[in-house]
Amino acid sequence: MSKKDKILIIGAGLCGSLLALRLAQRGYKIELREERPDMRKTDISAGKSINLAFSDRGIKALKMVGVVDKVFPLCIPMTGRMIHSIEGETFLSPYSARDGEYINSVSRGQLNGLLLDEVEKFDNVTLQFNSKCTSVDFENNTVGCFDNISGVEEKINATIIFGADGAGSILRKEMFLQRKILFSYSQQFLEHGYKELSIPPTESGGFKTYRNALHIWPRGEYMLIALPNLDGSFTVTLFLPHKNSEYSFSELNTDEKVNKFFQKQFPDALELMPNLIEEFQNNPVGNLGTIKCNPWNYKGKTLLIGDAAHAVVPFYGQGMNASFEDVYVLDQYIKKHEGNWSKILIEYEKDRKKDADAIGDLAVENFYEMRDHVANPIFKKKRQIEMELETKFSYYSKYSMVTFKEDIGYNEAKRIGNAQDKALLNLIANNRVEGLSIEKIFELVKKEVSEILDDDKIAKTMHH
Amino acid sequence: MSKKDKILIIGAGLCGSLLALRLAQRGYKIELREERPDMRKTDISAGKSINLAFSDRGIKALKMVGVVDKVFPLCIPMTGRMIHSIEGETFLSPYSARDGEYINSVSRGQLNGLLLDEVEKFDNVTLQFNSKCTSVDFENNTVGCFDNISGVEEKINATIIFGADGAGSILRKEMFLQRKILFSYSQQFLEHGYKELSIPPTESGGFKTYRNALHIWPRGEYMLIALPNLDGSFTVTLFLPHKNSEYSFSELNTDEKVNKFFQKQFPDALELMPNLIEEFQNNPVGNLGTIKCNPWNYKGKTLLIGDAAHAVVPFYGQGMNASFEDVYVLDQYIKKHEGNWSKILIEYEKDRKKDADAIGDLAVENFYEMRDHVANPIFKKKRQIEMELETKFSYYSKYSMVTFKEDIGYNEAKRIGNAQDKALLNLIANNRVEGLSIEKIFELVKKEVSEILDDDKIAKTMHH
Repeated sequence: MSKKDKILIIGAGLCGSLLALRLAQRGYKIELREERPDMRKTDISAGKSINLAFSDRGIKALKMVGVVDKVFPLCIPMTGRMIHSIEGETFLSPYSARDGEYINSVSRGQLNGLLLDEVEKFDNVTLQFNSKCTSVDFENNTVGCFDNISGVEEKINATIIFGADGAGSILRKEMFLQRKILFSYSQQFLEHGYKELSIPPTESGGFKTYRNALHIWPRGEYMLIALPNLDGSFTVTLFLPHKNSEYSFSELNTDEKVNKFFQKQFPDALELMPNLIEEFQNNPVGNLGTIKCNPWNYKGKTLLIGDAAHAVVPFYGQGMNASFEDVYVLDQYIKKHEGNWSKILIEYEKDRKKDADAIGDLAVENFYEMRDHVANPIFKKKRQIEMELETKFSYYSKYSMVTFKEDIGYNEAKRIGNAQDKALLNLIANNRVEGLSIEKIFELVKKEVSEILDDDKIAKTMHH
Repeated sequence: MSKKDKILIIGAGLCGSLLALRLAQRGYKIELREERPDMRKTDISAGKSINLAFSDRGIKALKMVGVVDKVFPLCIPMTGRMIHSIEGETFLSPYSARDGEYINSVSRGQLNGLLLDEVEKFDNVTLQFNSKCTSVDFENNTVGCFDNISGVEEKINATIIFGADGAGSILRKEMFLQRKILFSYSQQFLEHGYKELSIPPTESGGFKTYRNALHIWPRGEYMLIALPNLDGSFTVTLFLPHKNSEYSFSELNTDEKVNKFFQKQFPDALELMPNLIEEFQNNPVGNLGTIKCNPWNYKGKTLLIGDAAHAVVPFYGQGMNASFEDVYVLDQYIKKHEGNWSKILIEYEKDRKKDADAIGDLAVENFYEMRDHVANPIFKKKRQIEMELETKFSYYSKYSMVTFKEDIGYNEAKRIGNAQDKALLNLIANNRVEGLSIEKIFELVKKEVSEILDDDKIAKTMHH
């Protein structure tokens, strides 16, 4: 294809904006459509934007487009999890024992706004808000878009169409419903939902609790987290079962019940949350779902990307980073096969699918680890050993590999990380690390991990 | 509820018919609707009915309704897999080393017809064919049914509605699309499809190849199987990738290519198949998919059952047996909580879901084992050791547990069976069984299995 041919990107969220920016830099003619109004002018969060944790995979992608230095000023580094016990005690569990390995709290709106500003600098991009995708004609590569302001419906034809339209992707839904191909599809909801709350800044604009951490109040069946914002506030998210539990969103249906619940479970957080009741009443309950599908492309001309292809739950802080990495990986294939879009899309999908599946699984697994962090002494012991290993050796825990080793794919990080977790947990549970030096433990872990991986490999030849 | 209240069952296939029969025996008033015409009067198979393997879980359910003695005369026992090598050599790999542990080839149409005959003996059942479910009003427990003959649309209200309408269930689709509940849903297709072919009887009505086996021609990327029928014929099924393979359904698009393919890969089968080309041309290519969903019930008043709740691929020969076992398990809860349908449906689902998930996974895994059986010497060695263990000890291989131990749930059979497989494969691969007596091997396997299960248990506390 010639660079004069048109590329349509549906969705100008984080993924769509970055994709548009990269393709614009490469000289393509881009049509970028977004259903919502311009977020730089309207608050469209509606209490439903879990704060984002920006980390190395996302950084890699934003370096590629040369905007990462503009992003860091919007970030607050979080060096670890600040665990709040029910008695109000806190301890900081660092994300890594190495310097420079931390994650960054950033506002979705500010980051998306920045990317849109960059996109608009390019003449070869047409960006239109309030333009909703309503139909897809896959055979003719044509999409129907309805303008929410003018009420006009238009047909847009493009050589290549990207569906970057998020977890509720219309493009994906059409792939599913039109049944032109065998479309494997999975949507899995947790029994938990979430509600966004907040800790406001102090009167002088300072932070009411420790600034540089992701705060967690883990309580088994439920969990509260808080991420810092530049203005001194924290965005707080409550995770709670939808129903069928002593405390659930359907149970907490009066102000009194909400207050009592917080007094009992999160007393130190409650003190920092003067607007709790009002926010609890006004903010909606969100669902937590993982979406996987296959294939992502239709005949090498249409491609799902970002959340549209692989929505994940937020518990690994990787949703945005995974979507940014999608664009990074896609760009490698554009570099390799420029001019042959069909090859680019198909090879990208083949490479990327396993990693997208892996981060979907990892994020669900991490939910349980986060919730149970305090309750389980084996987890604490494991984390402590991991920190020692990371301090003294070239050792990367699963969390570190997923979060900080952007040169290892998610799938590989999951495979090795789960073997490490299994080895450590079993060594601890069977009292095999008691009294050993960290050097000995390191040798033992390496040996066990290698055996686990070998055994899994042989068994796996059976199940492919 | 009173026994005079109405129960609507959508679908009079194997599961719906058995369910209707059991509920009729219990005295309920049943409305049974089937979209297709009466299969006892019309051939509705259209070359798309993989033969059925009737085994202990199904037998347990048909014993419950007292019809099993009428079924056995329709069955041909298959005591093992007859493996056909590419050179035309054969060897029988028994399903079990114990007497009485075999599976039964049975025709879907004959078995379904028998169940329908039984159902029709009850005055409290209204059975109507050509009645297609077109809409569902979950709140009012009302289903719209369109009569394919008269063209009349009618609304049927019932106290309890069962969706026994198979893998393409309308009831399930409505649960998905109406979004009244968080509906987790997964449809996963294999890259392989299938086509039904046949080996006709000899002129005197005998069997052209060994009668009492499930014949397999395993060839890695593709596979042919054959199951015996009472008339001396065999129903043959070819499994082949849809596309993107040297041999695939999209590649085999001329008679010459089909003939060459069979000549090269299945020469001994080709000799028995005089109608190959005609059948290949006329019979459709089917898809192979696994469907899982959650929940199965809506507010304790509507329930998906059988394939509608959990469609599986045919490689464990358990699709029908699992659906029959659904009815058996449901009946246990009816016995326990009769009068309280909500409790029955919800507790049934809670109990049964893990087992349905497990057989879905097991069936996909077995596809790979069947395909690769001949190619992999470790598999052969494993099967040989399993047979010895089953002969001498109270040992059940995964296959035996799934197929013959109807008192163990699928999920438990999967958990223990996979640990056994892993232990055996690793022992063989690491040359640790060479020269050992079978007694020593038994001890070793028990020890390894126990360690694997322990290790998995600890690691699993992390991922729930």
